[in-house]
Amino acid sequence: MNKPLNVAQKLIKTHLLEGEMTPGKEIGLKIDQALLQDATGTLVQLELEAMGLDSAKTEVAVQYVDHNLLQTDFKNADDHVFLHSAAQKFGLWYSRPGNGVSHPVHMERFGKPGKTLVGSDSHTPAAGSLGMLAIGTGGLDVAAAIAGQPYFVKMPQVMGVKLTGKLPDWVSAKDIILEMLRRYDVKGGVGKIIEYYGDGLKHLSAMDRHVIANMGAELGATTTVFPSDEETRRFLKSQHREEDWTELKADNGCNYDLEDEIILDELIPLIALPTSPGNVVPVREVEGKSISQVVIGSSANPGLRDFWIAGAIVKDKSVNPDVSFDINPTSRQIIQNMIENRAFANLIKAGARFHQSGCMGCIGMGQAPASGTISLRTMPRNFPDRSGTKDDQVHLCSPETAAASALTGKITDPRDLEKLFNLKYPKYEAPEIDIINTDMLVAPSKNTEELSLKKGPNIKTLPHIDVLKDSYEVPVLLKMKDNISTDEILKAGAEVLPFRSNIPEISKFSYTVIDETFYDRAMEAKNQYGGHVVVAGENYAQGSSREHAAIAPKYLGQVAVIAKSYARIAWQNLVNFGILPLEFTNPSDYEKIHQGAILRLEGLRDDVKNGNPIKVHISYKNKEIAIEAMHSLSVRQVNLILKGGIINDFKEKLAS
Amino acid sequence: MNKPLNVAQKLIKTHLLEGEMTPGKEIGLKIDQALLQDATGTLVQLELEAMGLDSAKTEVAVQYVDHNLLQTDFKNADDHVFLHSAAQKFGLWYSRPGNGVSHPVHMERFGKPGKTLVGSDSHTPAAGSLGMLAIGTGGLDVAAAIAGQPYFVKMPQVMGVKLTGKLPDWVSAKDIILEMLRRYDVKGGVGKIIEYYGDGLKHLSAMDRHVIANMGAELGATTTVFPSDEETRRFLKSQHREEDWTELKADNGCNYDLEDEIILDELIPLIALPTSPGNVVPVREVEGKSISQVVIGSSANPGLRDFWIAGAIVKDKSVNPDVSFDINPTSRQIIQNMIENRAFANLIKAGARFHQSGCMGCIGMGQAPASGTISLRTMPRNFPDRSGTKDDQVHLCSPETAAASALTGKITDPRDLEKLFNLKYPKYEAPEIDIINTDMLVAPSKNTEELSLKKGPNIKTLPHIDVLKDSYEVPVLLKMKDNISTDEILKAGAEVLPFRSNIPEISKFSYTVIDETFYDRAMEAKNQYGGHVVVAGENYAQGSSREHAAIAPKYLGQVAVIAKSYARIAWQNLVNFGILPLEFTNPSDYEKIHQGAILRLEGLRDDVKNGNPIKVHISYKNKEIAIEAMHSLSVRQVNLILKGGIINDFKEKLAS
Repeated sequence: MNKPLNVAQKLIKTHLLEGEMTPGKEIGLKIDQALLQDATGTLVQLELEAMGLDSAKTEVAVQYVDHNLLQTDFKNADDHVFLHSAAQKFGLWYSRPGNGVSHPVHMERFGKPGKTLVGSDSHTPAAGSLGMLAIGTGGLDVAAAIAGQPYFVKMPQVMGVKLTGKLPDWVSAKDIILEMLRRYDVKGGVGKIIEYYGDGLKHLSAMDRHVIANMGAELGATTTVFPSDEETRRFLKSQHREEDWTELKADNGCNYDLEDEIILDELIPLIALPTSPGNVVPVREVEGKSISQVVIGSSANPGLRDFWIAGAIVKDKSVNPDVSFDINPTSRQIIQNMIENRAFANLIKAGARFHQSGCMGCIGMGQAPASGTISLRTMPRNFPDRSGTKDDQVHLCSPETAAASALTGKITDPRDLEKLFNLKYPKYEAPEIDIINTDMLVAPSKNTEELSLKKGPNIKTLPHIDVLKDSYEVPVLLKMKDNISTDEILKAGAEVLPFRSNIPEISKFSYTVIDETFYDRAMEAKNQYGGHVVVAGENYAQGSSREHAAIAPKYLGQVAVIAKSYARIAWQNLVNFGILPLEFTNPSDYEKIHQGAILRLEGLRDDVKNGNPIKVHISYKNKEIAIEAMHSLSVRQVNLILKGGIINDFKEKLAS
Repeated sequence: MNKPLNVAQKLIKTHLLEGEMTPGKEIGLKIDQALLQDATGTLVQLELEAMGLDSAKTEVAVQYVDHNLLQTDFKNADDHVFLHSAAQKFGLWYSRPGNGVSHPVHMERFGKPGKTLVGSDSHTPAAGSLGMLAIGTGGLDVAAAIAGQPYFVKMPQVMGVKLTGKLPDWVSAKDIILEMLRRYDVKGGVGKIIEYYGDGLKHLSAMDRHVIANMGAELGATTTVFPSDEETRRFLKSQHREEDWTELKADNGCNYDLEDEIILDELIPLIALPTSPGNVVPVREVEGKSISQVVIGSSANPGLRDFWIAGAIVKDKSVNPDVSFDINPTSRQIIQNMIENRAFANLIKAGARFHQSGCMGCIGMGQAPASGTISLRTMPRNFPDRSGTKDDQVHLCSPETAAASALTGKITDPRDLEKLFNLKYPKYEAPEIDIINTDMLVAPSKNTEELSLKKGPNIKTLPHIDVLKDSYEVPVLLKMKDNISTDEILKAGAEVLPFRSNIPEISKFSYTVIDETFYDRAMEAKNQYGGHVVVAGENYAQGSSREHAAIAPKYLGQVAVIAKSYARIAWQNLVNFGILPLEFTNPSDYEKIHQGAILRLEGLRDDVKNGNPIKVHISYKNKEIAIEAMHSLSVRQVNLILKGGIINDFKEKLAS
């Protein structure tokens, strides 16, 4: 008899092309589906162009447009034209601007139990809600998958989380994932797949599971998976796609590498305080603080229920006059359904500001809060400055907590609505069949040969990257603490994102959140020393998957990062773009490197190739010491890093 | 028996405080209502603060927030907090962000036949649709009116335009005002009130009249007036305000200074080509050109009918895949009514992107079109770069033409829909009673003494302005052609507008559309010569009323403008901020001044005071010549200009 498997293991086993399913070892997976969004997608399309791809090799590949919708000048609109032309050229679906946020739209239109998905967006794991293995990664990895290459990742541990019982009134899926973040913080999921199972699942709809899988990214998890069961079938049926349903359940007697349990009945409303999604406390602990803004929406609470419950709470009432009540409907389809179930009218009547379907303030594209004031959001992240306001005070919570607080103007436990407004918890009845809207999904083109790419003046070809040299003598330009996010390495927001297809321009924003002098110092070091290194603590480059956080520092001459540990996606991105991600052999050596020191590395290519310890000579204030660093790259990755990254590797393959 | 009067004369006569109703002579009017929007309003509120106002003296004053809604950083949101606090402090209504565009909201909630209104927005004349005398002007004039001062303006000529017959199918109110622009171009209305009368009026609803009165601003008219009749009553009744209706009609046998007639039955769909609203041709002449964007909304087509007809045209169809179909609903109330009459669902279904209620792309705040592509808009203006895209190709048209073109992807005469889609012209039935939404209108505060202003870090006190000196020797920094718009003097858009309360910052954008070196050259001239002058042709500073186009150049040392003629609002703004608006005594002398020349002015204070010709000595390439200039300022204005503008005058009054 075969060994009983859990859902994650089944998904991996059916897609395993290389390697063994031993946690920590690299595996290569067959990829069925790919997802791109626009902020990362322009670069991916330029990469597909560089590779000379004729047509996508995946079963389904979709170019979404959800990040850059404000169009304050020509650049966003030019990108949309470019992405549309590239999607047609390379055989991708094109989801037009305003059609919606990639994750819920993908789930509604393309998600399929048992399939694998990679996406150039860190919240791609949301599709795990449907029994898929869905992994967020850098754009280059997605480009490779679209070109038919396997996706490589270290085999994660599988952590089984048993859900028992039923959520109390006023507590919803968001509180489950906030409870996980309260227990495990932002790196508790690193190197793990979180698999939910148990009786409690039968009260969680597919979209509730999306909420949990989506913000699994905030745990640092490789991905989150749910089984495909009757709730999954119900969801696909509501999307007129019941035929895409297959059952996918863990075998009886399967094992998990790690285990935990959440008793749903015991959960209470939770909230993540600034400035980390892991900074979770009960709403009760901070209730009564004045707020200036409430935002409901984003891929972390994208479902019809999430808007409906907010509408039901504010129905026939008015939001507090000091609160901007911003609604961020996640798709045009959701809007149509909100019109029918009256959520839209209830929210507008109570004072909501409705915004076009997209990521909006979740990635700092608009609706920044007033200086120094509290904004309550159902979004997944509250890293510093991500909202667009420097001293922002973003709190993360459920739609119930958000809507209750919008009414009172203060952080409010939604359970208090029963006495404050004599309101019983509104019970949501999901429609059996949703209104479906596919009018802004453009199907892949059949005859692509005569099609050409439409490039506006801000879309520039990628800069050349040098191969790894054998020796360097370069300064340490920055020494950073633990948990540095990609938002701190290269922030998002309206000022920065428009330059995503223009590397020389976007590199000017590298590390500005930490140190505004970085760009100037890096250009100086590039001229004087031919490059630089940076040093960091644990979990370097957590958060968003944007590969600009690798390519921009690379353009500025970044040779290597030396850190205690790395967030998974960013680690892969560094390798892909030819930045050597080194780890301290002895983590306490972190104390021995100072900003401004000069590092000398010799015989580097051989040491990297052979997996030898890498000697790092440190000159600082006329003293020289040496420490040891190491890498944990696979043979495949070593090959990439020696060549200066995946683009050079592709070019070589193309030439041969 | 009294002389029979037209509507404009009746409105003026009942509000006349100073002067005589002789065209060209300055009159002082009692002002009943005032309207502020946020882009100009922050400055007005700072002015009210400087004046030490206790409470607004007008019957109704409203602070709207409709321009700066994108909130890409803290500045917009901080302004909203400031404006809310200032409205409460100074006894104004506050229309919260997302409540809607000032003009339609004011018409719906506050407009009243027989009343006068001034507003710090050039489209304020839209309220003329209700039989009001509504004038757009600089913020300082509005501040003065709110403080109980008369509003001063040169008595305009009244031009009577007789409307006869009935509009054909597929032709609507927008085509009437485009026909006026075709006949009279962008300065044909300067110094005039346009008064519509005749049988044709009975087929034009109050909101249709709003479309015409709104874009009367594009003719350069002082304002537009309509009688208050049964259609006006019907409108006020639909707004639950029938009690605010009074009849206001021209007397039999009244005269007009000028007359014209439009036979409505003969009109066809019209369109204004780039880059002037006066550049009007039949749609037929440009049909078939590919487009990339359609935008429906703005204060120039704000009514429920305008969205309904677009929805009825695209119902059960899909917009062309190459067209971004942007809908800009003008108020929350409109959205609620659009939900009920299915326009919202029809538009969303067909592919619309919905945006929060506000001015949006009409003032370059978002939805800029792709480089070099055609955008069709129902908005009032298409000046260069106003959309946010430098080489924009914005065309202005009716909702019918816009919706038809969205379906085909090409500029399309809407009459062709009958054969293209077998579509009869949809007939709009206005609801007897609209859904009314007042939830985001905050009433004036009663006890204002203990209230304080909430100023974020980007809100700065106004810079000091010097009195007019007796002599200057200053360079001509810029020589401009005819019809320079305020958009070219100080452009709007996402990059610029956020600095509207920070004069040193916003002044860096002065004239950048014409000459990017202007700021640097002006600062140099300020240091070396103590100031500068600029030279222009006819109709200087047409377009938007924004007074930043005066205060910013003033901050850079602008002593005087010498032009062939001025747009009315901007001329007033120049005086208010202490810039001397001179005219060529002999317009052909325009040819004698070159950019780079040094001008010498002597005995200036006496000459200005006594209305003497002003001698301008011109040194250029080692030659010196002299020409004569003059001003057409009233005694009141001369007093202001000698003091360095209205702020200094207010300060003096306050001190005494």
